Amino acid sequence: MNLEIFGVEGIGEVTEGDDVASMILEALPGQLQDFDIVVVTHKIVSKAEGAVRVAATDEDRWAIVQSESASVVRRRGDLTISITRHGFICANAGVDRSNVMPGYVVLLPRDPDASAHRIRRRLERQTGVSLGVVITDTFGRPWRRGLTDVAIGVSGLPSLVDYRGTTDTFGSTLEVTEVAAIDEIASAADLVMGKATGIPVAVVRGLRLVGDGRATDLVRPPSEDLFR
Amino acid sequence: MNLEIFGVEGIGEVTEGDDVASMILEALPGQLQDFDIVVVTHKIVSKAEGAVRVAATDEDRWAIVQSESASVVRRRGDLTISITRHGFICANAGVDRSNVMPGYVVLLPRDPDASAHRIRRRLERQTGVSLGVVITDTFGRPWRRGLTDVAIGVSGLPSLVDYRGTTDTFGSTLEVTEVAAIDEIASAADLVMGKATGIPVAVVRGLRLVGDGRATDLVRPPSEDLFR
Repeated sequence: MNLEIFGVEGIGEVTEGDDVASMILEALPGQLQDFDIVVVTHKIVSKAEGAVRVAATDEDRWAIVQSESASVVRRRGDLTISITRHGFICANAGVDRSNVMPGYVVLLPRDPDASAHRIRRRLERQTGVSLGVVITDTFGRPWRRGLTDVAIGVSGLPSLVDYRGTTDTFGSTLEVTEVAAIDEIASAADLVMGKATGIPVAVVRGLRLVGDGRATDLVRPPSEDLFR
Repeated sequence: MNLEIFGVEGIGEVTEGDDVASMILEALPGQLQDFDIVVVTHKIVSKAEGAVRVAATDEDRWAIVQSESASVVRRRGDLTISITRHGFICANAGVDRSNVMPGYVVLLPRDPDASAHRIRRRLERQTGVSLGVVITDTFGRPWRRGLTDVAIGVSGLPSLVDYRGTTDTFGSTLEVTEVAAIDEIASAADLVMGKATGIPVAVVRGLRLVGDGRATDLVRPPSEDLFR
């Protein structure tokens, strides 16, 4: 299986009310194909949805982080690890001041799975092909240094790919092997998007994944989580 | 930037003493190119290095998990989360019985960064091109369901790509933004390797990363870790 991943440049600055799907299609260097997965950094989705707030001071920003947090898991110095209303655990409840006008912050979309679904429907209507859409953010994680991109919204794809019951190369049945494919897709796409390059969209071509998962499926229920 | 990722099929079963680099080159469908990143699932590296143990019973396996663990972080039912001697935190100290003969388990390589370095040197000598090598395993993580592949060994690449000090699209300086690029590479490669497909190697082509990081650089020091 060959995978091709390319970034979509030239989308330009997104503001409230913009039609992200149309902007992606205008900037795309070629045609979308069946099974293509369009990976979109949440920042342009949030901006199109108006999920941007004025935050002139650190105190303003802190108040916004609090209002975006369902609860705070840990705090040390400047770092706050929150649970968002969606259930995601991340720094500052996803409130971020990079790649937005100075004095403003961008929030996470209110319902990123629904945002992904809307973008997918628009892309599919305008192109006539069947697609997947993943909306990403950049999260830290316990135990391992460095950030990786993960999926916070998805449409048209399975959230987890379950290999349980399949057999390995020795004919033994695989045990617990649920792969977070949409997180791996988000990470793969980040390799061509980068952080400072103004490439907010990438296309992953060559996978044959179809499903109706939601990114919130990846939220581990507190009762199963040994590390909250 | 365009990225191409393809799996390397037909490597066959690896046993102690095998030359993994030569087996990869024989199975490769084409030529390696400068900057190619060869991603190798640790299982074939461990097997070539003899890091395989007889484990006829659950008790045997449990004893091996203990001997491979520097310490145990959490335990619930069958699930043990250990810190390995390398510092990685993962289930069962990486001791795994899938894709190995029934009655045996595979351990992590003793020094996966050194293993990656040896494989890279052999590949480079035989091909004359400059490469990166990443050795992967499949880890769970707190908070998010599903497994993803991460880097446990690396050679020829930076472990973290640091965007601090670069500016975003608004000219603002990016804050803490160290990306765990080798983990994103591991996850990207897993999309073509799968879990049950007998594809233990993939090539990631199109990145221009060069460095001398080690995968153990990604181990977050306990003093910085809020979630141990």
